[in-house]
Amino acid sequence: MDGTNKGGSGLAGVKALVFDVFGTVVDWRTSVIGDLTAFGQQKGIEADWAAFADAWRAGYAPGMDRVRKGERPWANIDVLHRERLDALLDQFGIENLSEAEKRHLNLAWHRLSGWPDTVPGLTRLKQRYIISTFSNGSVPCLVDTAKHAGLPWDAVFSADIVRHFKPDPETYLGVIAFFGLQPHEVMLVAAHNYDLRHGRAYGMRTAYVNRPTEYGPRQSKDLAAESDWDVVAGSMTELADRLCG
Amino acid sequence: MDGTNKGGSGLAGVKALVFDVFGTVVDWRTSVIGDLTAFGQQKGIEADWAAFADAWRAGYAPGMDRVRKGERPWANIDVLHRERLDALLDQFGIENLSEAEKRHLNLAWHRLSGWPDTVPGLTRLKQRYIISTFSNGSVPCLVDTAKHAGLPWDAVFSADIVRHFKPDPETYLGVIAFFGLQPHEVMLVAAHNYDLRHGRAYGMRTAYVNRPTEYGPRQSKDLAAESDWDVVAGSMTELADRLCG
Repeated sequence: MDGTNKGGSGLAGVKALVFDVFGTVVDWRTSVIGDLTAFGQQKGIEADWAAFADAWRAGYAPGMDRVRKGERPWANIDVLHRERLDALLDQFGIENLSEAEKRHLNLAWHRLSGWPDTVPGLTRLKQRYIISTFSNGSVPCLVDTAKHAGLPWDAVFSADIVRHFKPDPETYLGVIAFFGLQPHEVMLVAAHNYDLRHGRAYGMRTAYVNRPTEYGPRQSKDLAAESDWDVVAGSMTELADRLCG
Repeated sequence: MDGTNKGGSGLAGVKALVFDVFGTVVDWRTSVIGDLTAFGQQKGIEADWAAFADAWRAGYAPGMDRVRKGERPWANIDVLHRERLDALLDQFGIENLSEAEKRHLNLAWHRLSGWPDTVPGLTRLKQRYIISTFSNGSVPCLVDTAKHAGLPWDAVFSADIVRHFKPDPETYLGVIAFFGLQPHEVMLVAAHNYDLRHGRAYGMRTAYVNRPTEYGPRQSKDLAAESDWDVVAGSMTELADRLCG
């Protein structure tokens, strides 16, 4: 046990692990680029699909922030993704797509694949803990992705349920209440330091899983744990090693 | 295909199956009687545990009705079960239980087992459909029971999420919206005709699974389908035969 982990009795009371999904559990960037590239090849459309995927994701936080600040009524991530998609198709000069094709493209975010360690790790963790999503993704996005990637969730907790996005307090407090647990009985697993900071502030246990290529080769943040999170791991299987012995 | 089933193209659009749980998926009566009997043997307490279980369940609908009618604020099924438990312990003359023992007893409703056909049927249905709970049970009850009974849900939808009990409209409309689907894309699977009547009224597809011993040997209702439900089956495996071919 290294110095960054509290370990031992501090984690003995943990009953549920709740996982950030985009980046932590699934490799959204590789998945979306692959999905867009396949679409382009099928339709004979040339574009820098990696740049398209990155630009799409770049609209994610600003889109949620407008909801979080009350500048618009609740809109879930599928709605926000679609608005951003329409703008990007215009920006990239991709024209004449049918409504069905646009819907298909938007569902790229429902066809995400796990990191190689994801399913083996989750499968082991599920033996000892309740495992659930804790994501800004919509319920359909999380359910479809779980089917696509074979993620063995015990439950799906989404921003949709509380109609708030992380890091609004309603999400952290909401997921704890959803499972009828005390904060210290819930461990947040995330590849993002900001998420863990908020979870810890509400009394949750914290596990950082390092995903230094989530944003591709030029990723500039969340390259390492930035606090003494209860567990720091390089993969979901390493997290299972730590928690399940 | 018999005359009570519409079958065919009318069901081709179904994407999600949402299951009533108590009675339809799990044999709550055998489970709770077994749990209470084991407790009694361990503690040296003699009682008619079958009568106790039946009386406990008899408080279920009236307890929810007080919430549904607005006679009290939202209280989930764990709270209602506990209130009823305390009254029944008194009524049955069972005294001197510790708070931990009472909590343990109340969690009998979290340790329910499936019918013999449940897991094989759900496992096959999950290959083709999203499968989810649609239950008045609490999230902890449904998650714990799924772990206990090995139920392979894709998602857990509970009365807790909408803070309404079936048959309030918010539950049927809520589960359809939860999955982002149209009513005809959701099939309600239940052993209770009243539940299917409500589901059909909101445009859901309907599957009746006959559970004529849910309430024991003297069951007096829901002994057969009472309408032309889209599918009528004698077990979850027969439902899988009908829907998965």
